[in-house]
Amino acid sequence: MKNVSAKPDTLRTATAACVLHMPPDCVTLLRERKAEKGDALEIGRMAGMLAAKKTWELLPLCHQLPLTAIDVIYEIGEAQVGITVRVETIAGTGVEMEALTAASITALTIYDLLKPHAEQDRLRITDIHLVEKTGGKSQYARALS
Amino acid sequence: MKNVSAKPDTLRTATAACVLHMPPDCVTLLRERKAEKGDALEIGRMAGMLAAKKTWELLPLCHQLPLTAIDVIYEIGEAQVGITVRVETIAGTGVEMEALTAASITALTIYDLLKPHAEQDRLRITDIHLVEKTGGKSQYARALS
Amino acid sequence: MKNVSAKPDTLRTATAACVLHMPPDCVTLLRERKAEKGDALEIGRMAGMLAAKKTWELLPLCHQLPLTAIDVIYEIGEAQVGITVRVETIAGTGVEMEALTAASITALTIYDLLKPHAEQDRLRITDIHLVEKTGGKSQYARALS
Amino acid sequence: MKNVSAKPDTLRTATAACVLHMPPDCVTLLRERKAEKGDALEIGRMAGMLAAKKTWELLPLCHQLPLTAIDVIYEIGEAQVGITVRVETIAGTGVEMEALTAASITALTIYDLLKPHAEQDRLRITDIHLVEKTGGKSQYARALS
Amino acid sequence: MKNVSAKPDTLRTATAACVLHMPPDCVTLLRERKAEKGDALEIGRMAGMLAAKKTWELLPLCHQLPLTAIDVIYEIGEAQVGITVRVETIAGTGVEMEALTAASITALTIYDLLKPHAEQDRLRITDIHLVEKTGGKSQYARALS
Amino acid sequence: MKNVSAKPDTLRTATAACVLHMPPDCVTLLRERKAEKGDALEIGRMAGMLAAKKTWELLPLCHQLPLTAIDVIYEIGEAQVGITVRVETIAGTGVEMEALTAASITALTIYDLLKPHAEQDRLRITDIHLVEKTGGKSQYARALS
Repeated sequence: MKNVSAKPDTLRTATAACVLHMPPDCVTLLRERKAEKGDALEIGRMAGMLAAKKTWELLPLCHQLPLTAIDVIYEIGEAQVGITVRVETIAGTGVEMEALTAASITALTIYDLLKPHAEQDRLRITDIHLVEKTGGKSQYARALS
Repeated sequence: MKNVSAKPDTLRTATAACVLHMPPDCVTLLRERKAEKGDALEIGRMAGMLAAKKTWELLPLCHQLPLTAIDVIYEIGEAQVGITVRVETIAGTGVEMEALTAASITALTIYDLLKPHAEQDRLRITDIHLVEKTGGKSQYARALS
Repeated sequence: MKNVSAKPDTLRTATAACVLHMPPDCVTLLRERKAEKGDALEIGRMAGMLAAKKTWELLPLCHQLPLTAIDVIYEIGEAQVGITVRVETIAGTGVEMEALTAASITALTIYDLLKPHAEQDRLRITDIHLVEKTGGKSQYARALS
Repeated sequence: MKNVSAKPDTLRTATAACVLHMPPDCVTLLRERKAEKGDALEIGRMAGMLAAKKTWELLPLCHQLPLTAIDVIYEIGEAQVGITVRVETIAGTGVEMEALTAASITALTIYDLLKPHAEQDRLRITDIHLVEKTGGKSQYARALS
Repeated sequence: MKNVSAKPDTLRTATAACVLHMPPDCVTLLRERKAEKGDALEIGRMAGMLAAKKTWELLPLCHQLPLTAIDVIYEIGEAQVGITVRVETIAGTGVEMEALTAASITALTIYDLLKPHAEQDRLRITDIHLVEKTGGKSQYARALS
Repeated sequence: MKNVSAKPDTLRTATAACVLHMPPDCVTLLRERKAEKGDALEIGRMAGMLAAKKTWELLPLCHQLPLTAIDVIYEIGEAQVGITVRVETIAGTGVEMEALTAASITALTIYDLLKPHAEQDRLRITDIHLVEKTGGKSQYARALS
């Protein structure tokens, strides 16, 4: 684990995204919140938030960072759902892995809720990647009021 | 999850309470620390502390707050035990849910240890509520020495 | 922890319930799924399910039981929501604590989502109790096909 | 959560896969086990195994399944690593989500260890999908010796 | 992780032990249950039980085994406490690591509660070892009633 | 739990150590990274790091401390491996228990991987103790840049 004892706490943000491909009628199910096991978008959002907070427990070399914001945003297409997660912390190191982990677990959770409604060869998660990060070396220190 | 990136770290405290009703001879068992599976009051206190620290993992929208103090206090009556939990942190948001969660898990743990000694229709947890909170908007910032 | 090595695996069920009191306009918010932080009923249901599966981690004397069913049911009143959780397992001991824990965490999660919308002295969880259990001594063994 | 109380325990297997894209010199680093923070392939394999066992905690609707085997296999290419995870259980429901979760967390862990060595726009996880599953309806019941 | 899919569930037991050395007045504190932070023996026993149930989460290659019994026994000496943990399961593989993990965490917990009362160079945990195991190849299959 | 609300955040370090005894051919296996279940030294290092971050969850009276550095160092002898763990945090209380817990779990993990290669009466963990700590009362406050 990288030694971050000497790093000042500053605002760090990271945004990650991925895409979950599915048959078009699954998109309808999601929109109408009618998946058999529950509202997949809301449950996926919640699972992603919980996973973001547990990243340090899942990825052995990650620090325990107290997240100060987590947002999960969906972009619903014809045969896919785009998942974007934006995470913030005030800490000495960045939150890329938290955003990437949350996006992945949100996608897996929705996949799980769609399993009764689709052949699994039609479900596929692609393109998990970092979209943006801010904070770190060149950033302002946290204003302590 | 509420965005608290811009909130300064200040001392926050919260006190929550609940009541566990039980037959009078169970009160005696607790006082004499003779429940079959162990010292229910001490185990309940410990379980409440552990749960307070895990609130962010149990309640999806709660922040990961580093608790700086947790106290579990019992008030033993004739056919009930009152449970009060007081929690502190230095953080950008409050610890009400931590205190409420700890009180609930303490009560459930004692309930579990009383099961071999009572009909379960005699065991009941009531009145989980917030007693007091301090800190937040109008509070002083943490003095950094 | 009670020694259950010699107990045969049989179907066990338990149902627990509690009530979350709130101002009437919070009931409306819940019904219309408009709480600021998300759909409180759906998130509460999910948090209760996750907590049921973690009962052995929260209550020190509980066994690790593989739950085979968890249902969270709401009964929405004028100034309260009734929460009932029914849990099943095939195991050598009962699942009362799992049902009680899930009901409590569901109530606390909804409480957390209502905090921005209500004075906290209007939010209160009462009457956590066991409603029913089946299985155990007098029950049939699991049919192994 | 699907009710699986009546389902017999049978052998279930699932295989999932994904691909982690990276610059060619990162492949060399992995092969020579020289990433700055540790042996990324070995750590990724371990993190995937731990995550498989925690799937029920990450995905709210998944059952707690006692995994009886977990294998993580790498196929190292020129600018990518293929990750395949095969999971087994003896249970009343399948382990697809366990295999998919393990593959994802293995990929994220290796990604995390490559961060000091690559521009992050060169790291990307794609094509998380189920490869195969066996067991379930048409399968043999577990032989109890 | 060893593949245990084909192994029948049988009764497995394991006993592990260790010794926590301390100044004699700490032994008195333990006996009289007067450590400042709580009843160290009772809290240590509970922490050991919880840790036994989490062994699969702490040791990456361990299976998730549903423990059916956990006992923590103390032997109090003049300047030491002997800790013995006996664990049982009905499973396809043994529980040595569960017993060893529980003994270690019990010792560490008591150590933690003694810190305010002793110079730390007087606290030392030694001789963590397996005492006995039964079950496995040559054992009887679980009697299913 | 000790109330640390008024304590300033300063750099705290702790170093703990233990010894895992084993037959000489196990030492060879470790050196050559040929244990059947994986690279025991690398997996042990990883498990120790994860455990350090979970100390607050394992030891009931420990605070949730955000570790800023964790190092696991091996000293390989003829019939033993020495394990030293050094941990850092910026917090209001010390990290002795984190270092001790990590050393113990690293030793237990390597033990687990050596089980197929040694009679268990030849495996033994001894001498878990604190080597050094810095920080606390007499220490400098963290420089906030």
